[in-house]
Amino acid sequence: MANFDGPGFSMVDKSWIQTKAIDIEPSTDISPYLSRILEDCVWNGNRAIVFDVYWDVESVNTKSERRLSSVKLSTKNLCLFLRLPNQFTDNLKDLYRFFASKFVTFVGVQIEEDLVLLKENHGIVIRSYLEIGKLAAVARGTPIVEFLGARELAHKILSCDMSRLDSIQSKWDEAGADDRLEAAAIEGWLIYNVYDQLQQ
Amino acid sequence: MANFDGPGFSMVDKSWIQTKAIDIEPSTDISPYLSRILEDCVWNGNRAIVFDVYWDVESVNTKSERRLSSVKLSTKNLCLFLRLPNQFTDNLKDLYRFFASKFVTFVGVQIEEDLVLLKENHGIVIRSYLEIGKLAAVARGTPIVEFLGARELAHKILSCDMSRLDSIQSKWDEAGADDRLEAAAIEGWLIYNVYDQLQQ
Amino acid sequence: MANFDGPGFSMVDKSWIQTKAIDIEPSTDISPYLSRILEDCVWNGNRAIVFDVYWDVESVNTKSERRLSSVKLSTKNLCLFLRLPNQFTDNLKDLYRFFASKFVTFVGVQIEEDLVLLKENHGIVIRSYLEIGKLAAVARGTPIVEFLGARELAHKILSCDMSRLDSIQSKWDEAGADDRLEAAAIEGWLIYNVYDQLQQ
Amino acid sequence: MANFDGPGFSMVDKSWIQTKAIDIEPSTDISPYLSRILEDCVWNGNRAIVFDVYWDVESVNTKSERRLSSVKLSTKNLCLFLRLPNQFTDNLKDLYRFFASKFVTFVGVQIEEDLVLLKENHGIVIRSYLEIGKLAAVARGTPIVEFLGARELAHKILSCDMSRLDSIQSKWDEAGADDRLEAAAIEGWLIYNVYDQLQQ
Amino acid sequence: MANFDGPGFSMVDKSWIQTKAIDIEPSTDISPYLSRILEDCVWNGNRAIVFDVYWDVESVNTKSERRLSSVKLSTKNLCLFLRLPNQFTDNLKDLYRFFASKFVTFVGVQIEEDLVLLKENHGIVIRSYLEIGKLAAVARGTPIVEFLGARELAHKILSCDMSRLDSIQSKWDEAGADDRLEAAAIEGWLIYNVYDQLQQ
Amino acid sequence: MANFDGPGFSMVDKSWIQTKAIDIEPSTDISPYLSRILEDCVWNGNRAIVFDVYWDVESVNTKSERRLSSVKLSTKNLCLFLRLPNQFTDNLKDLYRFFASKFVTFVGVQIEEDLVLLKENHGIVIRSYLEIGKLAAVARGTPIVEFLGARELAHKILSCDMSRLDSIQSKWDEAGADDRLEAAAIEGWLIYNVYDQLQQ
Repeated sequence: MANFDGPGFSMVDKSWIQTKAIDIEPSTDISPYLSRILEDCVWNGNRAIVFDVYWDVESVNTKSERRLSSVKLSTKNLCLFLRLPNQFTDNLKDLYRFFASKFVTFVGVQIEEDLVLLKENHGIVIRSYLEIGKLAAVARGTPIVEFLGARELAHKILSCDMSRLDSIQSKWDEAGADDRLEAAAIEGWLIYNVYDQLQQ
Repeated sequence: MANFDGPGFSMVDKSWIQTKAIDIEPSTDISPYLSRILEDCVWNGNRAIVFDVYWDVESVNTKSERRLSSVKLSTKNLCLFLRLPNQFTDNLKDLYRFFASKFVTFVGVQIEEDLVLLKENHGIVIRSYLEIGKLAAVARGTPIVEFLGARELAHKILSCDMSRLDSIQSKWDEAGADDRLEAAAIEGWLIYNVYDQLQQ
Repeated sequence: MANFDGPGFSMVDKSWIQTKAIDIEPSTDISPYLSRILEDCVWNGNRAIVFDVYWDVESVNTKSERRLSSVKLSTKNLCLFLRLPNQFTDNLKDLYRFFASKFVTFVGVQIEEDLVLLKENHGIVIRSYLEIGKLAAVARGTPIVEFLGARELAHKILSCDMSRLDSIQSKWDEAGADDRLEAAAIEGWLIYNVYDQLQQ
Repeated sequence: MANFDGPGFSMVDKSWIQTKAIDIEPSTDISPYLSRILEDCVWNGNRAIVFDVYWDVESVNTKSERRLSSVKLSTKNLCLFLRLPNQFTDNLKDLYRFFASKFVTFVGVQIEEDLVLLKENHGIVIRSYLEIGKLAAVARGTPIVEFLGARELAHKILSCDMSRLDSIQSKWDEAGADDRLEAAAIEGWLIYNVYDQLQQ
Repeated sequence: MANFDGPGFSMVDKSWIQTKAIDIEPSTDISPYLSRILEDCVWNGNRAIVFDVYWDVESVNTKSERRLSSVKLSTKNLCLFLRLPNQFTDNLKDLYRFFASKFVTFVGVQIEEDLVLLKENHGIVIRSYLEIGKLAAVARGTPIVEFLGARELAHKILSCDMSRLDSIQSKWDEAGADDRLEAAAIEGWLIYNVYDQLQQ
Repeated sequence: MANFDGPGFSMVDKSWIQTKAIDIEPSTDISPYLSRILEDCVWNGNRAIVFDVYWDVESVNTKSERRLSSVKLSTKNLCLFLRLPNQFTDNLKDLYRFFASKFVTFVGVQIEEDLVLLKENHGIVIRSYLEIGKLAAVARGTPIVEFLGARELAHKILSCDMSRLDSIQSKWDEAGADDRLEAAAIEGWLIYNVYDQLQQ
């Protein structure tokens, strides 16, 4: 079984997130990590996987293009951070198939534009997804939360201490790899808990 | 009359689902199976056929393409699982015509993207369909159910024991053919019952 | 005046539907039949013509195409079933013009996809149409009826005996020409009565 | 000043509609008639011009095309019926400009498809228009009227005697030129009165 | 400072509108007039500029094209009427930039189609605009006003004497240049006052 | 750390906005300024960055094109004004990436058209944005504020003294560089405070 042997981080409620960051190369087998994420989501969570995608900007003259550079997947206990290669490699199919899974709901913040780009630029289709800000706006009757980023959305719904996340993100350019991974884990955990809260 | 001679599975309410999995080859006549599904749906059900489609990922450079690989059709008592060949064969027309039937309503979960792909990639049009999550969200006044996968949607509406399904899906990569067929039958049965419930 | 000299069928309320099925050939003059439908609809009905269209599936490699193969037109007393030729023939213009009539409202079930295909594939525009399921959903406050086929929609609104229709449709592949025509007449009559009911 | 020297017709409320039918030829000057319509609409009406457009079906293989063949313009006292030539002639610009007028609101029934075709096929844009069925549906709280043709819409709102119109339209193929003009005048007058009623 | 030295007109409430009509030639500097409009709108009004655009119809075979021929800009005290040349001239950039201003809201009636044509045919984007009929419909709860032209919309909201405008517009083809300018000024003034009323 | 060494301006509530205007050249490193904006927004604000973009009009025949010429970014204490070069330079990628940030919500007025142009003309995607006028319209129940420019929107929500802004904008063509920068700072500050108000 895949080992999430990256650093672990303690959240403000003392829960623990185990992380794994992978630079995907042609020979990397990511399927065990995806299976472990799936398993954790089925057994411990509510079949929700919080995800976020990151784009690299490439430019041609006055135009810029976007290429999927990283993917973050979070469950109750795990956070997987995948850095994608510049060229398509065959093992990425595992990721593409994972996104098409109907077993789980992929939960994201401000993902509308991402979903369009994923399909247009890479042909990736996320089958079962939830724009959680829109749902929160309806469920709570507060239209503004539809337009917030992950941190502010969580702040509105969970009202928990955000100082660690703020501290890392305010000095993002100077942050080290582990700090950035911690910020990713915190954001994933926050949205996971927002989703959990909205379910009740 | 077509014989559903695959394994049968007992559901949590002791009802019985008879299955049939077919690898479609050029010489396979699928029409008797489709006729039997239709007949079962007309006589025993409420003219609803629960369906799900599965896609294979093919890739060209940084882009991926999707090809319809399997179709699942479920009624009250039957579950038909069709694996499609890579190349179009003439007998698939029977399936395409079946999807265009106006006698029944095809019921699915998170099917919006599927319907687009079916039309764009294969020219298949499902005439009379129902995105059951959307309906459940309106009928129950709980917006979140629109965004759930089959299992969570059923969990919210039916509150029945899901441990067998969870057990199979959490170890999907290691599951055998019969276990996967059982999971397919359970999911079909769950959605069938959600639909039934929403009708009342 | 055109003679509807096909078989007549008795409905469950003892009303009588006179039918006519025509295989359109280049020399067939369909206009007298369309005129008679129009006249019946103006004098006896509420200017509603229930219609249904049927498609033939043609395939090219992994793609399929649809070609209009038949059209059903129903009024209070009449049911006209037109089988169209493979090639466009000049007399079909009468049908195309008939669909563009503004004297009447064309009433159908689950016709959204049909209307798109009629325009895209054949340039046919139905000027004044009504998707009756959507209307029924609004008028009755029961969202589910928007998604039902003709039989189930009628079942929800009219609650009349459907055994004859079920009997024919459950064994569709084995049904004879007259049985199929009777099923067509019954479905037309059912939707006509749903429309009538919703008007009150 | 343009002379509406076609037949005049008495409506069921004893009001009088003066008509003019014109076959437009390259030398025909239609602007005086349009000016008179405009003047009547400004002084006697509520700046509403009821319009209807008619299409000719032309076919190429399995596809059909539509070409604007006639236009009907109705005010409180006048009904102008213009038959257009097959080829574009310069004097049609007067009609195109008339449609773009912002002085008045053009009122029609089931015109959505017409507006698209007018723009796509002929580049004609009606600047200020009103789909009266949609408005009536909202104003009266009866969703069904959105989907009705002119006669049934008027029937629902005005409840006046329609026997003369029914008599002509039920035998449309056998109707003479004057009868058809009378039907056009009656339909125009009906919609004009529906609009008037909805204003109050 | 630009001089609005065209005729001035007295409105029904005794307010005074000073006008300027300009035939734009390659050497015409329109920017001082636009600056004066902007200044008037900032100091005396509520940052609203009422605008209207006029199109010339050009035809190719059965199709017609539209070319922006004139623009009307109205504030509380001023009405500027610009007639544009057939060919693009460099000084028109001042107008294009003016339309993109974010200092003010451009207010129009039935402008949806205009905005599309401005962008498609001339690449002009009005940044901050208001379709006042739609707003009035919502604000007053009277759906019909969304579909009215400028005069009728103003009539519904302001109920002031329209006889001068009616008198000019009913005989539009015979109206002289000054009468037409007066009608333009009156319409601009009416909409300006409708906007003012809706603000309160 | 980047130094905002442009002029500082006092707002009507005595708060102070420090500004920086940069003409971007190929060798300019804008990332420290963007980092400082981000940091200020994380620590002092509510993770909102108010932005505005400005376009240059270029024309080809009767058509005009738009090119992004400047960008304004405002936080609680800072206002950064970037003038972009005609040609794409590599350092602009920093700005493009900044716009794609998910840490913050980009807040703008009447930005719908801007967002489309940013994507179409330059491939720039703002990931997390808020059209504040729309939100204010919903939150306050006053539909008109959706359509207002920055100054009028702020006027409706904040009711503070606008005379300095009015004074500069009414004489815009004659305004000097510092006055224009002050107007930019005031507008940014106004919208920042509108957002702040709507949050409560």
